[in-house]
Amino acid sequence: MPSNPRIAVDAMGGDFGPSVVVPGAVAAARQEQLDLVLVGDVAAIEAELAKLDTSGLTIERVAASQVVTMEDKPSDVLRRKKDSSIHVSCRLVKEGRADGVVSAGNTGATLACGIFILGRVKGVDRPALASILPTEKRPVILLDVGANVDAKAHHLFQFALMADCLARTVLGYENPSVGLMSIGEEEGKGNVQVKEAYDLLRQSSLNFVGNVEGRDIFKGELDILVCDGFVGNVALKLSEGLASSMANILKRELKRTLLSTLGTMLAMGALKRFKRLLDYAEYGGAPILGLESIAIVCHGASNEKAIKNAVVMAARFVGNQANQLLIKALSENKDLTRFSRGRAETAETGS
Amino acid sequence: MPSNPRIAVDAMGGDFGPSVVVPGAVAAARQEQLDLVLVGDVAAIEAELAKLDTSGLTIERVAASQVVTMEDKPSDVLRRKKDSSIHVSCRLVKEGRADGVVSAGNTGATLACGIFILGRVKGVDRPALASILPTEKRPVILLDVGANVDAKAHHLFQFALMADCLARTVLGYENPSVGLMSIGEEEGKGNVQVKEAYDLLRQSSLNFVGNVEGRDIFKGELDILVCDGFVGNVALKLSEGLASSMANILKRELKRTLLSTLGTMLAMGALKRFKRLLDYAEYGGAPILGLESIAIVCHGASNEKAIKNAVVMAARFVGNQANQLLIKALSENKDLTRFSRGRAETAETGS
Repeated sequence: MPSNPRIAVDAMGGDFGPSVVVPGAVAAARQEQLDLVLVGDVAAIEAELAKLDTSGLTIERVAASQVVTMEDKPSDVLRRKKDSSIHVSCRLVKEGRADGVVSAGNTGATLACGIFILGRVKGVDRPALASILPTEKRPVILLDVGANVDAKAHHLFQFALMADCLARTVLGYENPSVGLMSIGEEEGKGNVQVKEAYDLLRQSSLNFVGNVEGRDIFKGELDILVCDGFVGNVALKLSEGLASSMANILKRELKRTLLSTLGTMLAMGALKRFKRLLDYAEYGGAPILGLESIAIVCHGASNEKAIKNAVVMAARFVGNQANQLLIKALSENKDLTRFSRGRAETAETGS
Repeated sequence: MPSNPRIAVDAMGGDFGPSVVVPGAVAAARQEQLDLVLVGDVAAIEAELAKLDTSGLTIERVAASQVVTMEDKPSDVLRRKKDSSIHVSCRLVKEGRADGVVSAGNTGATLACGIFILGRVKGVDRPALASILPTEKRPVILLDVGANVDAKAHHLFQFALMADCLARTVLGYENPSVGLMSIGEEEGKGNVQVKEAYDLLRQSSLNFVGNVEGRDIFKGELDILVCDGFVGNVALKLSEGLASSMANILKRELKRTLLSTLGTMLAMGALKRFKRLLDYAEYGGAPILGLESIAIVCHGASNEKAIKNAVVMAARFVGNQANQLLIKALSENKDLTRFSRGRAETAETGS
């Protein structure tokens, strides 16, 4: 019998620390076959564990003494906070004492520790941060949402390969459809990188459906949407902001009359389901793809459910061997990538 | 007494042609001091006018025989459809027979005719398409939303100058606040162009509030948000798509139970106001800024109200002399722009 996936969880991360992270992680271990390594202030972790039923679960505790704040620069955390919970969590994975890491702490620090401590899968030029967004139907993977401020065509192509593996192994999608974010559906629309990425995707074995405009993301017809980290980050945050503003406007409008207040009470169940559909907690966290082991970044405001879902996602990524699939995909598409990379390098040196 | 602003309206544009455009334009002339030039199939225009009260209004009819479809390439319209309603409308403005143009036709063709027939204001490097978006408070101007697939720092800076003039003259904002779209609020976040544009904006006379993330757009604390045309187009279409999907989800959830159906009926007034807040028709159309005369692009699905509001916007732009203000702003910020433009050219030639 293969051993359980072993997930290192940064117990100190997020706005609420161990009081939310520990019960979230334990709930994941109750739901899925996985072992936990809880990293941080061991006394605080023990205090939370004491409140929970942990019978039958394998939960290791590992001490980390330093605290990472939201103001800490990623490079400083990497160099000077080597005994912080995120740094220690990543090192545990690197040393083979865990298979993946989940953190709701400082996103930049998690990205930096993930990329520099875990290292990249051989052949991956740039790791990417993926976000799993709700739609009218099933979720769509949007990437990159912020690991890179720009991206060349072969980076965008590799993002698609990485997301394809995530969709197949973690979301259980068969032959996921891949779209390229652009400003028109026709081939030839977009900037230079997008046009060249279009060519690569078209020639690849991926289920490429062409350019996709922002307005089609939420219909739920698409499984993967590829863009550079600047565009993806703007798109992600704009979606969060718009959803929240729409909810505020709706609430304000509903409160304006007594009749609609009564209506609101009667419509409450529907409004609750509406809110849940937009709830990031359903999708847990944003995986950093292309690393030797999986690392998942959770929202700072994550609740127990978000942490639970992120830990489950990490365990499925490991258990379903997503990276083995990626290595195969990279190898199969080596020539396409190499050609495009070479072209980009030639353009840069101006030769 | 100064003469009324004279707006050329492409009567054949949009999904519904003269049956929507003509009454929309006439409603604008009823509301605001302005004269109309309706361009297209004169018989069809006359048929629509016959249904309306046009007493006391100045309405010229100008014939245009060619039809532009949504499939026509902008360059083809520009070169081969010189007797199309959009081409003729722009030429009327160029010849001084009208002061501005409004079209709900093919966006690319309107952009091309606007830019190449009307010409740029001296000193403007790149015209930009601006969108006026609803927020929780007053509307925000987002630009560029698609006239340019990329933009250098000095282009972004000029977009801000152009939007500032629009906000002051058409929206009546005093000292409008300007934000730069980026992936973090701190200075130094973003790609190369954004970082350099940050410097220019900081040194300018604009009311620059720094980097803004997508999540803050819809709160309504900001008046102008600057980005390149790729990012802006994605942001605009994504907002449209998300708003529409949220409305669909809400409708579906509300329909699920009898109790919430009753609730929905009672909450109907609020839901209607909610929908209206998200209605692009409130803001009419997207002005192309930086041209010698104003051109406004309307949504293909524009209703009468959207056309009316776009024609009113064009008249106010002309009447309040927005371009005079722009010429002054360009002149005052000439040195900043020139320095940045020079730097970009040096980088490009590699010298």
